[in-house]
Amino acid sequence: MPSAATTYAVIGATEHALALAAELRLAGNRVIVAEQAARRAALDALAAAPGLDVDCQVESVVGGRQRRLVTGIEVAPDVATAIGAAQVLIFMTPQTTYEDVLAASAGSLRNDQIILLCPGGLGGALLVARIAAKAGAPDLLVAQTSAMPLGGRNAGPAALRIASKKKFLPVGVFPASRTQELLERLAEDFPQLTANADVIETGFAGAAMGLHPIPMIMNAARIEADGPYVYDGYAITPSIARVIDAVDAERRLILKALGAPLTTFSDILKQSYGVDGDSFHEVVHAVPGYRQVKSPPDLRYRYLSEDVPTQLVPAVALARVLGVATPMLDATVNYANAMHGCDYWRSGWNLEKLGLDGLDAAGIAALLARGFGAR
Amino acid sequence: MPSAATTYAVIGATEHALALAAELRLAGNRVIVAEQAARRAALDALAAAPGLDVDCQVESVVGGRQRRLVTGIEVAPDVATAIGAAQVLIFMTPQTTYEDVLAASAGSLRNDQIILLCPGGLGGALLVARIAAKAGAPDLLVAQTSAMPLGGRNAGPAALRIASKKKFLPVGVFPASRTQELLERLAEDFPQLTANADVIETGFAGAAMGLHPIPMIMNAARIEADGPYVYDGYAITPSIARVIDAVDAERRLILKALGAPLTTFSDILKQSYGVDGDSFHEVVHAVPGYRQVKSPPDLRYRYLSEDVPTQLVPAVALARVLGVATPMLDATVNYANAMHGCDYWRSGWNLEKLGLDGLDAAGIAALLARGFGAR
Repeated sequence: MPSAATTYAVIGATEHALALAAELRLAGNRVIVAEQAARRAALDALAAAPGLDVDCQVESVVGGRQRRLVTGIEVAPDVATAIGAAQVLIFMTPQTTYEDVLAASAGSLRNDQIILLCPGGLGGALLVARIAAKAGAPDLLVAQTSAMPLGGRNAGPAALRIASKKKFLPVGVFPASRTQELLERLAEDFPQLTANADVIETGFAGAAMGLHPIPMIMNAARIEADGPYVYDGYAITPSIARVIDAVDAERRLILKALGAPLTTFSDILKQSYGVDGDSFHEVVHAVPGYRQVKSPPDLRYRYLSEDVPTQLVPAVALARVLGVATPMLDATVNYANAMHGCDYWRSGWNLEKLGLDGLDAAGIAALLARGFGAR
Repeated sequence: MPSAATTYAVIGATEHALALAAELRLAGNRVIVAEQAARRAALDALAAAPGLDVDCQVESVVGGRQRRLVTGIEVAPDVATAIGAAQVLIFMTPQTTYEDVLAASAGSLRNDQIILLCPGGLGGALLVARIAAKAGAPDLLVAQTSAMPLGGRNAGPAALRIASKKKFLPVGVFPASRTQELLERLAEDFPQLTANADVIETGFAGAAMGLHPIPMIMNAARIEADGPYVYDGYAITPSIARVIDAVDAERRLILKALGAPLTTFSDILKQSYGVDGDSFHEVVHAVPGYRQVKSPPDLRYRYLSEDVPTQLVPAVALARVLGVATPMLDATVNYANAMHGCDYWRSGWNLEKLGLDGLDAAGIAALLARGFGAR
């Protein structure tokens, strides 16, 4: 067992969350898993089992490629208990649940803790830091990754396979001035973390903003009538790829206005999956893991109901401050609003929720660097 | 033969255009059909045949339900020749071709002529009146209907069935002050015309603005991969119906700001087809003629490439002047732009093309009533 064992709370009960809990436990840490009541089934199964049967297919995971019964993962009766006991809180719940999870646990937050959102949408760290500050923990360190660290697959009620692990994982820290501190405090268990300039850059470092909602809108009739069906490469046809390219062009205008490095969705997929191609349409169809997957089962799926309020809405809000026009991002949010009969502009992560209202570009940059105290 | 036989030029070679030409000829008029070179095939077949073999299924058509060989329909060598010889010019070409057709025929336009656009998009009469004025015919009377007067079906190279005829047909006249004059001049051959207040009201009197583009966007992946396929009720699922309802709500806000009667797409379908239902989703699936039709064969189909530039773009342009927000209409145009890789805001019927730029709501109302001379 390493000398500096840490107590982790992993909030979430998906296969990816349990994969991360297993690896942290294999590394000798105290690991407490918890989830909101409505989503606890997987944790109840784990609590009743002698351990988590992990079939690890990935050499780079702690312990390497092997099958192990991982024992000693604690299942907390509720999220607040797990959060109260832990030094590092890893959120692998849907981004849309952050506010509810923290509202139920506000009294458990402390300034010495770290919250790591895996991943955290566009600016989730800002939302969470505001809630922590209101709960009396203004110096709690909040970070977010650009993707999930590990990919798990359920193999039974208390069994899973770890199928993938990110070899490097971009992370943004809020405030960015504490980036080095975060890297040091997590160095033992997360050596793969690679720092972005700030949490907004991390929020733009994934391809989900283009890959998830647009193919759902442009497959909507079929998803609603026949879903799930085979969704090869997200069912992206050349015209869908052109719409995604148009969103990507808006994303790059925002990145440029932020002074962040310019990437394309193609760049992100090429780097993440080691594939190649001359266009986004070619690249997306070159990713082996996107072949013969299933379409969303229905139109409420998280590709719209989570990604629109936590990625597209804040992207547009930032663009407005920066003077960047985003007709295609706007169009996508408005289609989702009409499809779902709601107003994601209001319920999503707008400037008020992220604590950025009233700031200009320079004010946002200062806040990202130094925290809400800089206002 | 009636005493006041008229010379009609029917521009267009679709089955609907030939059905109208046949009825006008059966009523004893001189009828000249013409089409642009690229679309002439149907007219060449007619010119080579002894006549147009018309199987009329509709009692209310001139001559009633019968099969007739309609002889004496003249096929003009080009559009300008037909236009030069006629008193009434009926345009049944795509709305996007008006500018090209008139550019090739500008020298043939005269102040004593009538142009009837069947149908004319949103404001097609304004566009056409401007072109006529520039060509030296500022007093040429321009009108537009809300739909095609007759529905024909090809039954052979020079044969067709007339399957339907509108028993009443809304018409808008530009300028509206000449509405009575138009009704009188066309009373003999078009007794079914019913006057709207102006051409903009007529432009909003159809359901195509909601029915055509949105289901194409929300079926895009399948149309591009598999089209044409069975497109029952435009493949409108409940979520697609919600998006169309959102566009309809914007359309009603525009109508309200114009002081025009408020209708819904459901009202229009109920009145047009004698169907019923508690929601747009129910009503659209109650229309017998929408059952088991074919989807667009590809994503360039006129439901986007014609309806977006000639209906949605001018609707948004008018809404801007009236201070009405139209996020769903904007979204639909922007999706079409990205899908087609073009800019319909610029190429479509914007305020400049309609001659409405620089006017406020009162100025537009005055212009619709009294013509461009009122500026």
